[in-house]
Amino acid sequence: MNITAIVAEYNPFHNGHLYQINKIKRDLKSDYIIAIMSGNFSQRGTPCIVDKFIRTKMALSQGVDLVIELPITFATASAETFARGAITTLYHTRIIDNLCFGCEEDNLLVLSGIASVLSKEPPEYKALLKSYLKMGLSYPTARHKALNNFGEFPQEVLSSPNNILAIEYIKALYQLGSNITPFPIKREVSNFHDTHVHSSIASATALRIAMLNGEKSDMKLAMPSTSLKLLEAVETFPDIEKLFYLLHYQLLITKKHELYNIWDVPEKLVNSLYNNFSNSTSYTQLVDMLTSKTYTRSTVYRSLLRILLGITAPPTVTYIRVLGCRQKSIRLLSLLSSKADLPVLTSKPYSSTDIFATNLYQLLRSSPNLYNQDYTQSLILI
Amino acid sequence: MNITAIVAEYNPFHNGHLYQINKIKRDLKSDYIIAIMSGNFSQRGTPCIVDKFIRTKMALSQGVDLVIELPITFATASAETFARGAITTLYHTRIIDNLCFGCEEDNLLVLSGIASVLSKEPPEYKALLKSYLKMGLSYPTARHKALNNFGEFPQEVLSSPNNILAIEYIKALYQLGSNITPFPIKREVSNFHDTHVHSSIASATALRIAMLNGEKSDMKLAMPSTSLKLLEAVETFPDIEKLFYLLHYQLLITKKHELYNIWDVPEKLVNSLYNNFSNSTSYTQLVDMLTSKTYTRSTVYRSLLRILLGITAPPTVTYIRVLGCRQKSIRLLSLLSSKADLPVLTSKPYSSTDIFATNLYQLLRSSPNLYNQDYTQSLILI
Repeated sequence: MNITAIVAEYNPFHNGHLYQINKIKRDLKSDYIIAIMSGNFSQRGTPCIVDKFIRTKMALSQGVDLVIELPITFATASAETFARGAITTLYHTRIIDNLCFGCEEDNLLVLSGIASVLSKEPPEYKALLKSYLKMGLSYPTARHKALNNFGEFPQEVLSSPNNILAIEYIKALYQLGSNITPFPIKREVSNFHDTHVHSSIASATALRIAMLNGEKSDMKLAMPSTSLKLLEAVETFPDIEKLFYLLHYQLLITKKHELYNIWDVPEKLVNSLYNNFSNSTSYTQLVDMLTSKTYTRSTVYRSLLRILLGITAPPTVTYIRVLGCRQKSIRLLSLLSSKADLPVLTSKPYSSTDIFATNLYQLLRSSPNLYNQDYTQSLILI
Repeated sequence: MNITAIVAEYNPFHNGHLYQINKIKRDLKSDYIIAIMSGNFSQRGTPCIVDKFIRTKMALSQGVDLVIELPITFATASAETFARGAITTLYHTRIIDNLCFGCEEDNLLVLSGIASVLSKEPPEYKALLKSYLKMGLSYPTARHKALNNFGEFPQEVLSSPNNILAIEYIKALYQLGSNITPFPIKREVSNFHDTHVHSSIASATALRIAMLNGEKSDMKLAMPSTSLKLLEAVETFPDIEKLFYLLHYQLLITKKHELYNIWDVPEKLVNSLYNNFSNSTSYTQLVDMLTSKTYTRSTVYRSLLRILLGITAPPTVTYIRVLGCRQKSIRLLSLLSSKADLPVLTSKPYSSTDIFATNLYQLLRSSPNLYNQDYTQSLILI
């Protein structure tokens, strides 16, 4: 039995994702593919274009055999925590052989070389990093120079979000002592940051923009038809600007010192939020105002989301929630249930924060009839 | 020295209000008129058409000498609590001679006769009321029949909101042992519930509707020009529908049992809210769904506002907050400050709930630049 895992957002599912699935089947001869997927909010801290149940259907219809939900607190965290949550969950399934991911750098020796140093952070590395930073080098440059003392690593490796995630996946595997084999796939065509659909392989960002602009031919070019149909059947999309009012209200009902207790939100960012929120007229503008050299847009989006969700503790992996399974692959669910060393849930998640996040998402869509969808939506079988 | 008080919402200030001021000056020969006015939310539990600072300007420009703010928790409560808050505050100024109010019934013997019974609720009255209710009579009919044992009171007296408020004012005066003299003015022309402007005296309801429909000639007909100019200078009006999202969010972050602690919200209404909110698509629709024979629309609006403001305790009168004063009448402010037996504030209110309500109002107007207006707005002098 050969089982491969994918960490994904499928926001939305496109031809690049299908290419990865086909490559796994061809090159790894995998019997099953399991995806661990973000729920209703992306790692960027923004609502996904369609909810997790629809995105599960997209994945299952294109060859993923089983979809596990990555809990919200991991799914909307930094690359390190995001990767730790995903890999730890996959590790506890006790059935995964390979981990497949797309990145610009597909040389496993380079990726694992860096991950190995970062997973241990030997004193020599730390000292070098510190001294380079003292010399006034930027963090990425200092880190690269410090790392290069342990191997020959091209400078551009650490400059793409996909490579950074890949390194974090491998780092987490090292730290868990897992024997899951990393399997990088080189992303050939479309860049993560591309905002236009150039060919049949496009970035999810470009596809979301195409959808909002009603550019159907672009979407048709770069998405599997089933996936596109599921997207087109959706009546309302989340309006991130509603978060503006909710955040204001949250700031009105919460005392400032309570915000210092929100997990992984720097105190300086809380102060900046307090100084700026009353001068902003939209959520996007507020995020712009808070974005700085110190805090990236994603850090700001994620921090505001954590404030909205009232997350006060770092996340831990305590269960495996299955969102859906291909009917043909139902034996995989049975295998997972018998092998996993954590509870396998096919119903609502344990975490009240995840249930809250699902409801918050539907509020942004103005779909109050989908309140408590985590309770009402049964396991998706396709 | 003769000082007359008015309890008002001025939502907005119109010719009927001016008529009352002129009548006080002519008939009572008052030296000064003090108005105690609701803040940014009306007794109906809805946002006022313009904020309290603009409404203070309207009142001062038309002959009111000094405006006191009725704290939010009183201002958005039932007639009994609303009246108790207003009269208690006026009582503690220790400078008021008369209380003038408009109502359909201007026979003081009738009003004070009823108020006297209701302020004491003698055992005989209570027993009669109970027995009439047991007989299956409606509450208003049973109350009227029980009251008639103590005097000859026409049945229609208790059927108008203005008469009910008038009785509550007198009842509060009785209970405080105050020697402020009630001075009812008969409302001749426009009915409280009228939704159209028929003449130069129109209801505030009719004027708000005229304003939202852009019927300028109607507004010109029934409002003093200064008052109209102040209204027309306002750029954004509150959108009550924003409360829909805030309420949903509040329900997502609050546990049901905590809502049982909200002051003066019946447990049944909380349950009904929980059962209905996820099926509603607008605030107004939700209010409709919760309105019943037991709970009037105003009760529902006020209850939801209390939930949004997180009010857990009944209000008490602890200070007198002056919103504005006519420059010519600045000696009145000095007199008030020396005579009152409660602190007189010309700055932000003591109550954090009042500050919250002011901010909530500006959020509904999308005026984040008016955040913390209670701190930044200085005493209005006209």
